[in-house]
Amino acid sequence: MQEKLWLEDLAVGQQFVSGTHILTADEIKDYARLYDPQPFHTDEVAARGTMFGGLAASGWHTAAITMRLSVQSFPLASGIIGSGGELSWTKPVRPGDVLQVKSEILEIIPSQSKPDRGIVRVKLTTTNQNGDVVQTFAPKLVVFRRPSS
Amino acid sequence: MQEKLWLEDLAVGQQFVSGTHILTADEIKDYARLYDPQPFHTDEVAARGTMFGGLAASGWHTAAITMRLSVQSFPLASGIIGSGGELSWTKPVRPGDVLQVKSEILEIIPSQSKPDRGIVRVKLTTTNQNGDVVQTFAPKLVVFRRPSS
Repeated sequence: MQEKLWLEDLAVGQQFVSGTHILTADEIKDYARLYDPQPFHTDEVAARGTMFGGLAASGWHTAAITMRLSVQSFPLASGIIGSGGELSWTKPVRPGDVLQVKSEILEIIPSQSKPDRGIVRVKLTTTNQNGDVVQTFAPKLVVFRRPSS
Repeated sequence: MQEKLWLEDLAVGQQFVSGTHILTADEIKDYARLYDPQPFHTDEVAARGTMFGGLAASGWHTAAITMRLSVQSFPLASGIIGSGGELSWTKPVRPGDVLQVKSEILEIIPSQSKPDRGIVRVKLTTTNQNGDVVQTFAPKLVVFRRPSS
């Protein structure tokens, strides 16, 4: 059991490293059929003739796995709640890739109007088994203070 | 059958409006169990005690449905291929919400180094049945010219 963290437990520079997830070709295709049905995500053969040169995961699939790995490894007591941020896919994710996420705290801004919370800028960096960065996401999270009880 | 569009068929200001998708509570919970297992996305009762005040879709689920609706309505011949962009969730998505996406072309930048393609800045705006914006995404897409044949 990880200890759950509130706003006052966080510090700039803290890092949280996730477990790993191996992305299979079947998983890539199943996700893409549901949410991103394009040939470079759903069909190995058709993918060869595209700019990807072979099957690649939908970026939204990489983002979804990044979220799950983050939820499992970045133990915010009030949850990981964001309103968006800059999302960047820097390298294709291929069948067999082993994904891992590092969450790093960049800035902590206590709310002026709502004393029970703050905004925390973080960077989530998703890498593959070679250490190549495949995605970055830089959201602002709402993080709550420990309730007085 | 929509006509497929190449770079030279696009113009700044063009808009493409998608069909709609009704998001059910079961779909919200099924997605969240897989990719964003937090109580405000997976459990109606637990969600009441959170800042969402009730079940809300994972933002990544909204993004995934936005992608599918875009693929079905924005008929780029070479596919919708982006390297990321600014993603913003502006309002919670609730069970029963009817989502629709408008894709608008903001800028067209022919590649200097690769004459067969260009970069197209677009804005994807996802709305609910009341016309409220629930998500915006502003990616740069790679779009190819019609092959000479």
